[in-house]
Amino acid sequence: MSVKDSILIYSGGLDSTTLLYEERDRVALAVTFGYGNNHAAREQACAEWHCQRLGIEHLVIDLAFMGRHFASSLTAGADAIPTGNYAEENMRSTVVPFRNGIMLSVACGLAESRGLKRVLMANHGGDHDVYPDCRPGFVRAMDAAMQAGTYDGVSLDAPYTNLSKAALVCRGAKLGIDYAHTYSCYRGGDRHCGQCATCLERQQAFREAGIADPTQYS
Amino acid sequence: MSVKDSILIYSGGLDSTTLLYEERDRVALAVTFGYGNNHAAREQACAEWHCQRLGIEHLVIDLAFMGRHFASSLTAGADAIPTGNYAEENMRSTVVPFRNGIMLSVACGLAESRGLKRVLMANHGGDHDVYPDCRPGFVRAMDAAMQAGTYDGVSLDAPYTNLSKAALVCRGAKLGIDYAHTYSCYRGGDRHCGQCATCLERQQAFREAGIADPTQYS
Repeated sequence: MSVKDSILIYSGGLDSTTLLYEERDRVALAVTFGYGNNHAAREQACAEWHCQRLGIEHLVIDLAFMGRHFASSLTAGADAIPTGNYAEENMRSTVVPFRNGIMLSVACGLAESRGLKRVLMANHGGDHDVYPDCRPGFVRAMDAAMQAGTYDGVSLDAPYTNLSKAALVCRGAKLGIDYAHTYSCYRGGDRHCGQCATCLERQQAFREAGIADPTQYS
Repeated sequence: MSVKDSILIYSGGLDSTTLLYEERDRVALAVTFGYGNNHAAREQACAEWHCQRLGIEHLVIDLAFMGRHFASSLTAGADAIPTGNYAEENMRSTVVPFRNGIMLSVACGLAESRGLKRVLMANHGGDHDVYPDCRPGFVRAMDAAMQAGTYDGVSLDAPYTNLSKAALVCRGAKLGIDYAHTYSCYRGGDRHCGQCATCLERQQAFREAGIADPTQYS
């Protein structure tokens, strides 16, 4: 019998939805952060859908100050999002500085407030090139900071840190996850644009996994 | 000639005001966080006063979600604040879980957004017993997480980590800081209550430093 001892940082995208299902027995609370990002509303609707289905409490926390005070194309409207894949230098404009550090810190405080012991994050291997706060060294140091900075030693678990996005799709497909109800596109339109780096990465993950992509692209 | 390369986490209390003056040549931006704490308005007014005096940009960032979702007497109104000194077990109720981790993460993202290299925090040795996120181990780990999680390796500097509050008063007095324009009381009234742990600690610091306390207590 597993204990409900964890908080999941849950965007409603493909990666964190996979982790939600894999850890459903231990997730007491899933938290979606809004930070003025273009795709916030679409992501949150997906997150809500899965949490309701699994009977897991879902909390939305607004970090609106990030949209106001931080420099990133991800919070600057759909037209600011570059076209093309993550390998391109211009993707650096989508970085929201230290975003994962901020979300982890808030989740850590929330965990300690509720007597929970573990924070889950679904960063994966494909994130490393562009996002410093997805890399193994960051994960290790942040885990140490969270454990040192809380009474109960709240820990960080990021089990996908060295997995590819295709590997996540394989794991999720086995669990029967309906990925049509996940949202990735950085432009935030009704349908996935199919041209931004996250859309390209999503398509590639299904292709590499050999699993049909249920996403409707524009 | 020093470079303006730092952000200071600046409450408007005695400790961070001392650090503001000591590092005035390097502080490009002072950030005050509101998190639903009882004493926010009084602290912010003091922070504003010193920043105007020194010609340093001052930003207030609202973390209202902490007041709503976190468990702490510090955000639950003046009557919830216990009387007595920090040695008492009931002071644990004033802990806002992982508060410094959250403020540091936001300041780190803001630093990277603005091309700044360093975040300053004024935690001191007297904070260790009650607040895990003021201890040397936390400071070291958080510094490592910030450096790993940013492109430019934003660092954390907490120069008072092993100093007493009395030592800060001595340093500030030499710089001519007017401590009457700093606010500490956790109850947040017009005057310092003189009975809560922060008021007792403040009085003791001036006494130990052998410097007249300019504070008006109720």
